Amino acid sequence: MADLRDGLRARLADLLVGFGANVQPGQIVVVSGELDDRGLMRAVAAGCYRAGALHVEMEYSDPYVKRARILYGGDGSIAYAPSWEFDRVAGIRDHRCATIHVVGAADPAVLAGLDPVRLGRDRNPTGREWVKAIIERSINWSIGPSPTPVWAAVTHPQLEPDAALDQLWKEIEHICRLDEPDPVAAWTERMDSLMSVADRLSERRFDALHFQGPGTDLTVGLLPSSHFIAGGIETAAGIPHRPNLPSEEVFTTPDPERTEGHVRSTKPLDVAGIVVNGLSVRFDGGRAVQIDADSGAEVLRGRAATDDGSSRLGEVALVDRSGRIGQLPTVYFQTLLDENAASHIALGNGLDWAVGDEHTDRVNRSEIHIDFMIGSDEVVVTGVTAGGERVPVLSGGEWQV
Amino acid sequence: MADLRDGLRARLADLLVGFGANVQPGQIVVVSGELDDRGLMRAVAAGCYRAGALHVEMEYSDPYVKRARILYGGDGSIAYAPSWEFDRVAGIRDHRCATIHVVGAADPAVLAGLDPVRLGRDRNPTGREWVKAIIERSINWSIGPSPTPVWAAVTHPQLEPDAALDQLWKEIEHICRLDEPDPVAAWTERMDSLMSVADRLSERRFDALHFQGPGTDLTVGLLPSSHFIAGGIETAAGIPHRPNLPSEEVFTTPDPERTEGHVRSTKPLDVAGIVVNGLSVRFDGGRAVQIDADSGAEVLRGRAATDDGSSRLGEVALVDRSGRIGQLPTVYFQTLLDENAASHIALGNGLDWAVGDEHTDRVNRSEIHIDFMIGSDEVVVTGVTAGGERVPVLSGGEWQV
Repeated sequence: MADLRDGLRARLADLLVGFGANVQPGQIVVVSGELDDRGLMRAVAAGCYRAGALHVEMEYSDPYVKRARILYGGDGSIAYAPSWEFDRVAGIRDHRCATIHVVGAADPAVLAGLDPVRLGRDRNPTGREWVKAIIERSINWSIGPSPTPVWAAVTHPQLEPDAALDQLWKEIEHICRLDEPDPVAAWTERMDSLMSVADRLSERRFDALHFQGPGTDLTVGLLPSSHFIAGGIETAAGIPHRPNLPSEEVFTTPDPERTEGHVRSTKPLDVAGIVVNGLSVRFDGGRAVQIDADSGAEVLRGRAATDDGSSRLGEVALVDRSGRIGQLPTVYFQTLLDENAASHIALGNGLDWAVGDEHTDRVNRSEIHIDFMIGSDEVVVTGVTAGGERVPVLSGGEWQV
Repeated sequence: MADLRDGLRARLADLLVGFGANVQPGQIVVVSGELDDRGLMRAVAAGCYRAGALHVEMEYSDPYVKRARILYGGDGSIAYAPSWEFDRVAGIRDHRCATIHVVGAADPAVLAGLDPVRLGRDRNPTGREWVKAIIERSINWSIGPSPTPVWAAVTHPQLEPDAALDQLWKEIEHICRLDEPDPVAAWTERMDSLMSVADRLSERRFDALHFQGPGTDLTVGLLPSSHFIAGGIETAAGIPHRPNLPSEEVFTTPDPERTEGHVRSTKPLDVAGIVVNGLSVRFDGGRAVQIDADSGAEVLRGRAATDDGSSRLGEVALVDRSGRIGQLPTVYFQTLLDENAASHIALGNGLDWAVGDEHTDRVNRSEIHIDFMIGSDEVVVTGVTAGGERVPVLSGGEWQV
């Protein structure tokens, strides 16, 4: 099956380069991922040069070095980066580069047994510079999935390693619509359809979204100019790109001060290699005031304490069951995929372009952005207008608008 | 044998961190190598944090990305680096960082069939910044060997892959004196002995070295203040370190304008993944005016045409047969090891600290530094004084001084 995987890898790479980031001739492209993702990253790099990129910069992260830092590094080593790393991200922004990031799965063995507090604190301090690049829409960027043996073992533990990897690649092929004769046309059609849902939601000018289901009774207040977005966006210079592939969500930026109630997550989530299971969060005045979980709560509590905005919401997203991921039984332990199987909210930084210019100063600001899944066929979503009217939005996993 | 290799790898890493680069508490350390070297690089990173490093920055280079660039990149992509890469090396210099570089072997398959001219031109343009860091002695640095399956296959093609890797590790253990009860003490003793040879050579104040053997009749003129060096050096701030492990050579910086005659290489050399076999070079007025080889001549010709100093000598080094590498029959196709088996000269940049301050402006300047081996038991080295006296230096591989 190795040859088959090579072919699939090349097609996935081409989708990320051409449709995802939409790399332009003469651009510098940063291709990032973990060392385990090097197969796909190399295919992406080749695709970038074929697309006319001036330069491809590879950014390999290595969880073993993180492990060594958590184990042996002094306190000053945690979350440290040299000054030139900040300058580099500023340069990437100023040069209006493209970026393609691929994500597989953290090997649970590598970060096992480490101090969760140090692990939670050890975030990349250049995050602020990257957030700026995204908010200012300086870069055309895309994030895509990278099937690896470790990820395959996590998602399909019942299969032998080789069969598990084949199965994961098969699912990624389907999820990324690479099994369509023209994947780009298939994605364009799906994204157009989601955009029309987004437009209908925006027209209702909801004041809040209300999520109701087992363990969940949560009201997420919206800003007066919050509008719903799906599919692709454009850089400030007008380069259309698709930040996430796959993307099956319709999302907006909420009012960070008006989330109230409690919510139970409907899927596990992975934070820095730690799986958080059975998460429940209580919000008061927009702030997550209580975070509990069957396992992994500490790492999320640590992230939520990063800065002033890290315990408030930056995103609320709706996902219907007609997307390809929601139809599969697999849990991927990977937000990029799982968030597109279910409605979700995100702690941390909000996106300016989902609100009007007059309200960008009210968008939540944080160095973090952590999605967690709160939707399922059992969770009913209702839109609430400023006048108190309740409008069904999503029920049994189907759009009601 | 995997466990045995893990133990050896950790001991090699400790030697590079402690004795090689001599990493100081609070330093930033750049650990670099190819993706295939990640096992040793990770052990080095862990060793750095244990030694109190503030931060370890991993720099993985990927020959597959180079391949994609040579195949698909535009002319502007060859030897390109973004501005922040230059700033980064300047920052590394300004922060007086430590660097540890490990080298294995380029996989000949990865760069096979590529345009040798583009390959020769595609050097890292930040080389000038690194040369500055070395000349100014800003950084405590060390380069060490990284045994990999690819390298093992190149050096021991007659063995099965696993046996070849075991054999290579066994040789590296011996060559790096890791089979001694106290490797640091063993290295200190050997380096002290070479330094006393260097001192005796320096005292003779030779005007030139004359190499004579099969295919070789070469005179390398020295500067009036050229002196011989072996073993370790110190940074400007006084941190002693050993630039190469292993190191069995006694070297100096020649007069770049006074090399005359012809020379035949006694070992193959590897330039950017291309093996140059049967090299012969003719010098006139200090400049390599003719470069021929049985294979691979183009890539060396390309490098020698890099800049004004790249066809002149920056180093001449003498190696006796009592070193551990010269006693082994293996050709490593890796300059770090092979240059310590045989006397050699290097095209390109010279080292200021092997001449007096009054002559640093006459040291050769170039972005390249490519060693090639010209010594063997059949090559006689004679020192020539300004008065014309001829003094035997090395004969039958043994010191005559």
